[in-house]
Amino acid sequence: MASVAEFKASPIGIVEEGISREKSERAHKSRYQVTSQVRVFEQYAEGLAGLSDYSHIILIWSMHETKKVKLKVTPWGRTDLSEVGIFATRFPPRPNPIGVSVVKLLTVKSNLLRVKGLDAWTGTPILDIKPYDYYDIIKTVKVPAWWKKHWGEHYAKRRTQR
Amino acid sequence: MASVAEFKASPIGIVEEGISREKSERAHKSRYQVTSQVRVFEQYAEGLAGLSDYSHIILIWSMHETKKVKLKVTPWGRTDLSEVGIFATRFPPRPNPIGVSVVKLLTVKSNLLRVKGLDAWTGTPILDIKPYDYYDIIKTVKVPAWWKKHWGEHYAKRRTQR
Repeated sequence: MASVAEFKASPIGIVEEGISREKSERAHKSRYQVTSQVRVFEQYAEGLAGLSDYSHIILIWSMHETKKVKLKVTPWGRTDLSEVGIFATRFPPRPNPIGVSVVKLLTVKSNLLRVKGLDAWTGTPILDIKPYDYYDIIKTVKVPAWWKKHWGEHYAKRRTQR
Repeated sequence: MASVAEFKASPIGIVEEGISREKSERAHKSRYQVTSQVRVFEQYAEGLAGLSDYSHIILIWSMHETKKVKLKVTPWGRTDLSEVGIFATRFPPRPNPIGVSVVKLLTVKSNLLRVKGLDAWTGTPILDIKPYDYYDIIKTVKVPAWWKKHWGEHYAKRRTQR
């Protein structure tokens, strides 16, 4: 039955310079300022033609170090927040650990992409690259209170640290 | 080497009511008006807790009927448009046929989601569900001239058909 068939993918590239493990906490907090380099494997380089006509792209990647699956998680391990379902979060321990990140495309040189805002570690396998277009923009969205609480505090903290 | 390891995923659900094959051309053209039903398999239902606090979600799905890979494609088969790399498009014949769709979340009832705007056929396997949040919104984007040409004409046509 098609619905339960296993899905298989082979990486088309790799994050050659990403978020470093050594400073992952700090780096993650400023992920939108991080510049990363993605190397698309030579045999797929032809597929990049025309990509630089976009300002933003969506990188689909494997959260390849995820070992366990949890259906409920406590966001950021914060004891003041309640558990939520894994699908209501972007955290890694999901049944299929696929990462989806909207990033700014800085340059495309041959098979090397420089992007800004990727929240993936160095060594992360890239599964697909898609252009970000107008249909991906939702102007007015609703997110949970816990999401706003965390990011509100985070930004307030960063402001005071400047 | 992690970078070339195969990625495996098992569907967590299925598009129970999606775009019909019989009217795919018409349906595709009005995909943003189409309401679809996604059934999350029982064993993953717990992971949906809290999802309804979001207005929009990202569905990650398998373009499971994609048979061949092309690194260059002519958008929509239009002879007046030039070939572009597959990664500069959202078309299916990509090396890893993963679909990513931003949809409006209408309702969550137990393990059934009603969504609006999904461009996937009935029977499509769902690999992951993610919440759409503020970090997915890029207010000002650049897209290629060919993209604007096509969608501009499409919308002009739809307007005259009303």
